[in-house]
Amino acid sequence: MEQSTKIRMGMVGGGQDAFIGAVHRMAANLDGNIELVCGAFSSDPAKSISSGKKLYLPAERCYADYVQMFAAEAKLPKHQRMQFVSIVTPNHLHFPVAKAALEAGFHVLSDKPATFTLQEALDLADILKTSPQLYGLTHTYNGYPLIKQAKHLIATGVLGKIRKVVVEYSQDWLANKDDELSKQAQWRVDPSRAGVSCCMGDIGVHAANLAEYVTDTKISAMCADLNAVVDGRKLDDDGTVLLRFDSGARGVLMSSQIAVGEENNLRLRIYGDEGSIDWSQMEPNSLWLKSNTKSTQLIRTGVGEFCADAQAAMRIPAGHPEGYLEAFANIYQNFSKQIQAFEQGVPCSNETFDVPGIEQAIRGMAFIENTVKFSQSELKWHDFDLSPTINSGVS
Amino acid sequence: MEQSTKIRMGMVGGGQDAFIGAVHRMAANLDGNIELVCGAFSSDPAKSISSGKKLYLPAERCYADYVQMFAAEAKLPKHQRMQFVSIVTPNHLHFPVAKAALEAGFHVLSDKPATFTLQEALDLADILKTSPQLYGLTHTYNGYPLIKQAKHLIATGVLGKIRKVVVEYSQDWLANKDDELSKQAQWRVDPSRAGVSCCMGDIGVHAANLAEYVTDTKISAMCADLNAVVDGRKLDDDGTVLLRFDSGARGVLMSSQIAVGEENNLRLRIYGDEGSIDWSQMEPNSLWLKSNTKSTQLIRTGVGEFCADAQAAMRIPAGHPEGYLEAFANIYQNFSKQIQAFEQGVPCSNETFDVPGIEQAIRGMAFIENTVKFSQSELKWHDFDLSPTINSGVS
Amino acid sequence: MEQSTKIRMGMVGGGQDAFIGAVHRMAANLDGNIELVCGAFSSDPAKSISSGKKLYLPAERCYADYVQMFAAEAKLPKHQRMQFVSIVTPNHLHFPVAKAALEAGFHVLSDKPATFTLQEALDLADILKTSPQLYGLTHTYNGYPLIKQAKHLIATGVLGKIRKVVVEYSQDWLANKDDELSKQAQWRVDPSRAGVSCCMGDIGVHAANLAEYVTDTKISAMCADLNAVVDGRKLDDDGTVLLRFDSGARGVLMSSQIAVGEENNLRLRIYGDEGSIDWSQMEPNSLWLKSNTKSTQLIRTGVGEFCADAQAAMRIPAGHPEGYLEAFANIYQNFSKQIQAFEQGVPCSNETFDVPGIEQAIRGMAFIENTVKFSQSELKWHDFDLSPTINSGVS
Amino acid sequence: MEQSTKIRMGMVGGGQDAFIGAVHRMAANLDGNIELVCGAFSSDPAKSISSGKKLYLPAERCYADYVQMFAAEAKLPKHQRMQFVSIVTPNHLHFPVAKAALEAGFHVLSDKPATFTLQEALDLADILKTSPQLYGLTHTYNGYPLIKQAKHLIATGVLGKIRKVVVEYSQDWLANKDDELSKQAQWRVDPSRAGVSCCMGDIGVHAANLAEYVTDTKISAMCADLNAVVDGRKLDDDGTVLLRFDSGARGVLMSSQIAVGEENNLRLRIYGDEGSIDWSQMEPNSLWLKSNTKSTQLIRTGVGEFCADAQAAMRIPAGHPEGYLEAFANIYQNFSKQIQAFEQGVPCSNETFDVPGIEQAIRGMAFIENTVKFSQSELKWHDFDLSPTINSGVS
Repeated sequence: MEQSTKIRMGMVGGGQDAFIGAVHRMAANLDGNIELVCGAFSSDPAKSISSGKKLYLPAERCYADYVQMFAAEAKLPKHQRMQFVSIVTPNHLHFPVAKAALEAGFHVLSDKPATFTLQEALDLADILKTSPQLYGLTHTYNGYPLIKQAKHLIATGVLGKIRKVVVEYSQDWLANKDDELSKQAQWRVDPSRAGVSCCMGDIGVHAANLAEYVTDTKISAMCADLNAVVDGRKLDDDGTVLLRFDSGARGVLMSSQIAVGEENNLRLRIYGDEGSIDWSQMEPNSLWLKSNTKSTQLIRTGVGEFCADAQAAMRIPAGHPEGYLEAFANIYQNFSKQIQAFEQGVPCSNETFDVPGIEQAIRGMAFIENTVKFSQSELKWHDFDLSPTINSGVS
Repeated sequence: MEQSTKIRMGMVGGGQDAFIGAVHRMAANLDGNIELVCGAFSSDPAKSISSGKKLYLPAERCYADYVQMFAAEAKLPKHQRMQFVSIVTPNHLHFPVAKAALEAGFHVLSDKPATFTLQEALDLADILKTSPQLYGLTHTYNGYPLIKQAKHLIATGVLGKIRKVVVEYSQDWLANKDDELSKQAQWRVDPSRAGVSCCMGDIGVHAANLAEYVTDTKISAMCADLNAVVDGRKLDDDGTVLLRFDSGARGVLMSSQIAVGEENNLRLRIYGDEGSIDWSQMEPNSLWLKSNTKSTQLIRTGVGEFCADAQAAMRIPAGHPEGYLEAFANIYQNFSKQIQAFEQGVPCSNETFDVPGIEQAIRGMAFIENTVKFSQSELKWHDFDLSPTINSGVS
Repeated sequence: MEQSTKIRMGMVGGGQDAFIGAVHRMAANLDGNIELVCGAFSSDPAKSISSGKKLYLPAERCYADYVQMFAAEAKLPKHQRMQFVSIVTPNHLHFPVAKAALEAGFHVLSDKPATFTLQEALDLADILKTSPQLYGLTHTYNGYPLIKQAKHLIATGVLGKIRKVVVEYSQDWLANKDDELSKQAQWRVDPSRAGVSCCMGDIGVHAANLAEYVTDTKISAMCADLNAVVDGRKLDDDGTVLLRFDSGARGVLMSSQIAVGEENNLRLRIYGDEGSIDWSQMEPNSLWLKSNTKSTQLIRTGVGEFCADAQAAMRIPAGHPEGYLEAFANIYQNFSKQIQAFEQGVPCSNETFDVPGIEQAIRGMAFIENTVKFSQSELKWHDFDLSPTINSGVS
Repeated sequence: MEQSTKIRMGMVGGGQDAFIGAVHRMAANLDGNIELVCGAFSSDPAKSISSGKKLYLPAERCYADYVQMFAAEAKLPKHQRMQFVSIVTPNHLHFPVAKAALEAGFHVLSDKPATFTLQEALDLADILKTSPQLYGLTHTYNGYPLIKQAKHLIATGVLGKIRKVVVEYSQDWLANKDDELSKQAQWRVDPSRAGVSCCMGDIGVHAANLAEYVTDTKISAMCADLNAVVDGRKLDDDGTVLLRFDSGARGVLMSSQIAVGEENNLRLRIYGDEGSIDWSQMEPNSLWLKSNTKSTQLIRTGVGEFCADAQAAMRIPAGHPEGYLEAFANIYQNFSKQIQAFEQGVPCSNETFDVPGIEQAIRGMAFIENTVKFSQSELKWHDFDLSPTINSGVS
């Protein structure tokens, strides 16, 4: 049966001037079935309330902090209180907020990277083992329809045996020292709020996740070379990682925040022995399917046949471009469906609803810590390591 | 002072299976400051209610028809009742619904073409002369940020004197007879619901509007050649129109719904004596600025400096693609701001708020009727004509 | 049996500073089986000799004019004298040179447009009826391999019934008055050397030829609108022509020499009821094959299967771009093969060797004269007319 | 003074069915100032003669082997005998042929890689120290005009300080076992004729050369990971090399012959702190110049201003695509000019004439041997090494 009320969302972080909070809200708004009902938008209570008011929230549901919010919301009648919290804070707060939310009985949809350290991600996994609540991670780029179609093409053998993965995520927004002045840059270059990595933690982890998601294989070993190109930067702002996958495939992951002229250049190429795919986030409605014996195919959203997951991720006809916010909204929609199933007592694993979850959280944090650690090594190759080696002074 | 409540929207049309109603709702939802509060979604009362329920509306605000809706809403307290109606019906109902809404004291945001006939558009203009209410027309493609930037480049002389305009809008969704089976196709090929034109009325009018909007000049004469390519089709599904503009510039407008392989290919090229621009709706975040003496510039959303209107129409950073729904949302946002100004007693012309209005409505209907009429003439050139010559059997 | 000597070529026109003469020579050189043996490169004898010397010709075969050249060459032993003449003069000399060459027993490969007037083209046809010599016309763009493949796709029904042709040829090299100073511009804007048209005669005729060549149908009626955009220009520098084809298909031909920012933008799109093709001369190694039910195919030179004519027109593997000179060389190669067949007494029609000939010459000149004539008419449509109506004061 | 005769070329290798020999000949032919006068086209004397005949050579100058050719040509009168030899054999013959030619007094233009081993390249350098003859190496891709412009932009500081180089050269022509059957594949996968590497020796070396050429810096250290992806292959067919440059810049070089769907995808991106360039061999007439504060510039051949080297490398106007053969011809033209200078007693270093020479030969062979050696190491980084470590059993 159709749910008759909207899904109720709270938000932690995302006050005025924050970038990613506004993105999450637009993504949640788009399809009209999620309602923002409360928030702790800023660590400054006055700012939190003024931010909430601008979002049309009543003052009593604009909280001074997440502890207060979870306590107050938990006391509201079931049909009023928020159902899930969207966490859009800097990285160091992801874990404590998620932990508190789960313990207070709320589902969690968290921005990435999942936590501050791999240890926290493992701790979160432990909490989720005993908590009935749902946990989702906004690996936005998985939300694009043609990424889902690419995954489907590989799963159904269209490319043959996968041999090579080249994934690149390049930007230039931290190309120079004075780029660090913006609010969203400040914390990303600060080890006490971003964690052990800037570039790999912010965007490299998206690239790694995308490669594993689309190929449905796991990175098994890496050779990493991270750089802090801008003078005085404490964390990496650029790096290349050579990859080996469980399946025997090789790969290259390039990521940079100092590649002048690159906007948000996430590109994924996967080569099999019978075909290859090529997809770029900046032209997300095109997927190139290539072969060495036939003409290239340009698969376009809305034209031809698609797998169910890709079909569900498209809203409008061919030639009407959908972009980043729509991909983000697809993550929110899938998580909403997962919550609906949960509420109806139906089995609701992340896999079934195509929502990145705690496994991706752990692998993402391991990827980040591993790249930093392996980069410092004089040896070339290291096995992908799921044991935490970097101590978090924060959690 | 910031308004503390969302703008309240009603909708006429857009029930289940309708395409454009859902698009309007996503556009209205995106920025979180417009709330759908009521609707008459279908001429079938049961369908209207079931459609409304799926949109989380209470049954009492899902109306059987627009007459009932306007009457009932007008009786609600001011802070509850809808403020504007979004009209997303087939063309023949645009005028009667808009007329009734204005007369009942509601602002109107109408899908295009504005009316069924030019005469109705002129009648609507008459009504608006005495009504205080606002009227907007969703010429979606004006909502793209780089269209606003192109307009700005031309207004500030970057291209020099404009000599030539080439605008094309090609699709293939009506390429064959059996394409007429879908709900949104059925009425578009039916003269009693679409009006005198299919292709020019549905998409050619967007192209003409875009050319006039960006150049800020008016079409003054036309030579038209419309075709009904698919056997048995009563209305045009393809056509070319040669243009002359007030300014002396020449132009070519090509439009087709039978151009197999074209998705939603709206492309605008404008040539001045010192530069030219080239923009394609299917890659809307790129604007090409060319010269014959210097390298081409690729202007990308989010990179570099923009005029205020373009800037206001962008939500996310460079390289995060925004598309059709975001452009549509920009029309809704501008109309919302116009309503806010109205409510606060501030002057609020369509021009100030960059909202297409009754002038575009009249010119659009004249364009449609003129192309049909001129196409039947053996003479090549005819002056653009604002007097209605086709009698509407409906209004 | 393999010919054991190179084909010997003479040239009329193409002295120092001339653009197109150098292009013809590179095209003739590329494949190593054509040898330039003599020339009358300039109407100034000293210039002709100095031009010839730079081309490594002995002084005795650098002639002062074409009359002298044909006379002298005819007296040389058969295995020494030139076999064909390449005519690369301004338009007004094409006919007299071709006539003299044919009468002196030399094959002719002429730059386009074939003649100065349609009457001359008809006269040339009369001469060819009784002359055994061969005549070819360098409609370069037919020489591209993917144009041949597009022709093949249409001939074999891949696009279904052809409905619409859109062909565009835009440049900007005559965008302004001072662009007329270069040697190659001077004569093109001068009616006494270029003929009745500048834009249509120089490039529009290529576009018309390409449309007829690829679709294998003929233009049957036209509606023309030519413009002289630059102040003081006597001939058209821009124009649009609506087309009807024998087959019932419609078309649009746009051509301009004042479209600022356009380099050499020749693009051909052909829409059938089951598919369409899209080809651009500036990216000549890509041919888009589209449908409204399947993914677009990107056909690339060297990848997959090709028809024999296309295959013969490629020299190097996929991804090694071939361009304009190679396409031009393909015309020279095909004409060389035609000459070889002639020498061996084998039937050697232009059609068999895929060489544009006198029929294209006549249709091209008719296209040019028709567009000028029809543009002056107040009536919209006129039948394509093969009778000469413009008197040439030259021939 | 202008030379009054063509430059006379001999060829070793390049008989029927050979790919690269035909390419060299077309490159030499294009501009009409180089004449093929003799050749030893095949190790089979009969084949050599039949190949030569097809190239219009007299039988007496079609030699059975290069030893015979050099001896016989040296005895011819100065104005008849060949001036330089073009070496287009498999790799293992490059050195002995070049050595013999130099010793017999002929200039050498050699296909790459220069030799079979680094030791041979060093030996060749020793010979050149005492030989007056000229030596050039056909690193084709340096011949593209926009590569020269990119080099100029970097040399003049337009990109600021160079931070990162990403160069990729991917193909798919050896993607599968049965791709090895063609003549040109057979020897490339055979260590006794190709040398220690297939992929790096055939194309990776082009990528490395291009990176050093354009940036005018040298690779100082590498981390290499080569793969033999196809079962049973003895040499690498894929690999990635991380780079450090003298200047402190980092880099990534990816190369593959098994990347299904890639044609001849050589792409160079160079990021400075103020700008970046992006160039792809498959669209060679476009050079992207990007910044993080201004619109991207699309530099197109023929549009705007160029440095002298780039200007000299263009033959035809904007929009008339020049490709691979023209780039190759530019190498031949530059070498021809170097020979002319030599003949006139003018100083004629490779640098002055922009011809890749012995230094590139040595660095290329070192690159190849280093990548193979470093790939086998467990350590990540190794200094670029100019001392030969692999013993050639052949030379």
